[in-house]
Amino acid sequence: MANALLAKDAADTCVLVTGGAGFIGSHTVVELLEQGYQVVIVDDLSNSSREAVRRVGEITGIAPVFADEGTVANTAGPSLTFYEASILNRAALEAIFAAHAVDVIIHFAGFKAVGESVAKPLEYYWNNITGTLVLADVAREHGCKNIVFSSSATVYGEPEFIPITESCPKHDATNPYGWTKSMLEQILSDLYTGDNEWNIVLLRYFNPIGAHESGRIGEDPKGIPNNLLPYVAQVAVGKLESVGVFGDDYPTPDGTGVRDYIHVVDLARGHVAALDWMAGRVGTGEAAGVGSVAGKPAEDGSRRGVGIFNLGTGTGSSVLDVIRAFEKACGHEIPYRIMARRPGDIAACYADASKARDELGWVAEYDMARMCEDGWRWQSQNPDGYGDAS
Amino acid sequence: MANALLAKDAADTCVLVTGGAGFIGSHTVVELLEQGYQVVIVDDLSNSSREAVRRVGEITGIAPVFADEGTVANTAGPSLTFYEASILNRAALEAIFAAHAVDVIIHFAGFKAVGESVAKPLEYYWNNITGTLVLADVAREHGCKNIVFSSSATVYGEPEFIPITESCPKHDATNPYGWTKSMLEQILSDLYTGDNEWNIVLLRYFNPIGAHESGRIGEDPKGIPNNLLPYVAQVAVGKLESVGVFGDDYPTPDGTGVRDYIHVVDLARGHVAALDWMAGRVGTGEAAGVGSVAGKPAEDGSRRGVGIFNLGTGTGSSVLDVIRAFEKACGHEIPYRIMARRPGDIAACYADASKARDELGWVAEYDMARMCEDGWRWQSQNPDGYGDAS
Repeated sequence: MANALLAKDAADTCVLVTGGAGFIGSHTVVELLEQGYQVVIVDDLSNSSREAVRRVGEITGIAPVFADEGTVANTAGPSLTFYEASILNRAALEAIFAAHAVDVIIHFAGFKAVGESVAKPLEYYWNNITGTLVLADVAREHGCKNIVFSSSATVYGEPEFIPITESCPKHDATNPYGWTKSMLEQILSDLYTGDNEWNIVLLRYFNPIGAHESGRIGEDPKGIPNNLLPYVAQVAVGKLESVGVFGDDYPTPDGTGVRDYIHVVDLARGHVAALDWMAGRVGTGEAAGVGSVAGKPAEDGSRRGVGIFNLGTGTGSSVLDVIRAFEKACGHEIPYRIMARRPGDIAACYADASKARDELGWVAEYDMARMCEDGWRWQSQNPDGYGDAS
Repeated sequence: MANALLAKDAADTCVLVTGGAGFIGSHTVVELLEQGYQVVIVDDLSNSSREAVRRVGEITGIAPVFADEGTVANTAGPSLTFYEASILNRAALEAIFAAHAVDVIIHFAGFKAVGESVAKPLEYYWNNITGTLVLADVAREHGCKNIVFSSSATVYGEPEFIPITESCPKHDATNPYGWTKSMLEQILSDLYTGDNEWNIVLLRYFNPIGAHESGRIGEDPKGIPNNLLPYVAQVAVGKLESVGVFGDDYPTPDGTGVRDYIHVVDLARGHVAALDWMAGRVGTGEAAGVGSVAGKPAEDGSRRGVGIFNLGTGTGSSVLDVIRAFEKACGHEIPYRIMARRPGDIAACYADASKARDELGWVAEYDMARMCEDGWRWQSQNPDGYGDAS
């Protein structure tokens, strides 16, 4: 009953989005609202901004209700309610589940800086793993057993083959951040094994970049960016001097590392597709294939099981490809310098995205040029990200 | 400084033993007290008994101080203080670390029933992983960065080779209990990577059985035993009807599964040896070999790093071997019946224990006959375990 997603339209479905003020989270909330969902965000703002939520409201025309500032929206969708709280805060989660009949959780919240995770493993395991355990426990208490989890291609470690399918074996992660993703996949899968009412979708992201075409929301890393794209964008806008390219002697066409960059809006839409799949509105479930168990609709039509999907474009781009595409988008040269390889980096990594296509009915639509155009619009119009707005 | 184990004699060294009222814990506390250590037990008694602590006091002649009943002992060793608390209870741990200058933790506390872990994964991950994260965090706050962790040969999964050395790759666990051991090994190792003051020893137990020769402490499983030995013992004493032997068509000498059974007193002494090693009193550290990093003494002489050791005898015994040995010990026949293989069971698993011998200076001394004699003494003198004593 509580698990029955199928019987509901989007407007009757309440989606709790943890980390919904963050980069991927905010873009996903836009797509959910455009599909008519009731969205409740819980975010501790440790690496995100209240301003992002305001701008999501601006883009979609759905005014956000800040639960700490006003009354709580819980009407038919589309609607948007924001709570500032950590998922480690059980009392806060209890209050949210008491106020909203949450049908499904899209779980983005988590620390994500690779280097920081090496220096602060205890904080990463605590925040990401214990936080998820609290979330799952409170959800279960309230009869919500549907979770879409923000996983990562990092669980493949050094991949056994490329393009990577979901049947590619998981390998050791190279840092605590990656381990939290890998461990949480296992933990969530075990929830289903122990209780077949759970419905788990693990989405393995490749490399999300770009921004909403409005230029109003985008990636706003604190401090020096860890990832290539925000780094390139900050060089383009003049905040940083030049891009460090780590290794040009990999066995790739131009010697630099190849990754599968995906437009964050495409990625966000993959989450909407996952909700449709969980509800049994798309896909067969049976064709979920290797890496999935069950997936057949329950009596109420919604699925049960563990569905695992790569979300990538299926196309690899080298570091130099990305720099050149961004130069085109911003209209000027981007200085870079070749540096030594970083330990743990692999030569090439890109997805076989056919399972998501066949089963979720989802494909990435935007190419690298578009990713860079949208990314540049965000960066140039918001050189300091969301700034000090809070 | 706080980490300096070397400068201290056992009598000046305070060892916090989590789960110290349990099967392996109580036997380890006996050995620690006999070496003169100050022992502080924290145990939530969820699967153990206050009576075990009383009997440890009886065996060693060191009267336990029950911290909830009297004053707190914190004098030179040997001394024994008991706290009833969960390691999930941060406030309780804070109070213990405030009352005792804990030098090193031997961390046994954890749920351990394989079947139950499949049915209750959230409870297992919460108790075992979150509990350990709380423990490590409080320990770190109090400057204690020495942990001996109760791991298991289960981390080898289906082992790549036998006898199993520490360089045998870890494989997927087959249940959440096993995953908690495997994940905690990773988490604790990452602590050292992020902060080289940590000193971690991972002890991979094979199959502990037997009991203290006094017959006063032993294994006291709640309900129907999960493991072979307490099951055999309860059949021997007439509480259960016959032993189920799961599979007699394995590629082993008699067709039944082969395991490396180790006397729990030998296992307990392995922990004492690990403390000596961490303090730099034995071993070279450099010879810690594959699976260990660092291990070289720091300026203060005590080691830093991650030491991984199998604790087993190096000898495999089949299920039928064990039944026959126990028949000899108890003096009568033990009925058994052959049943189907259990999914996830492997044919044979036994240790190469040479690394612990070479580096810790530790070897298992007791043979299967002795394990069964001591196990039988405990079972026959305590047919209901510790009974309702609490």
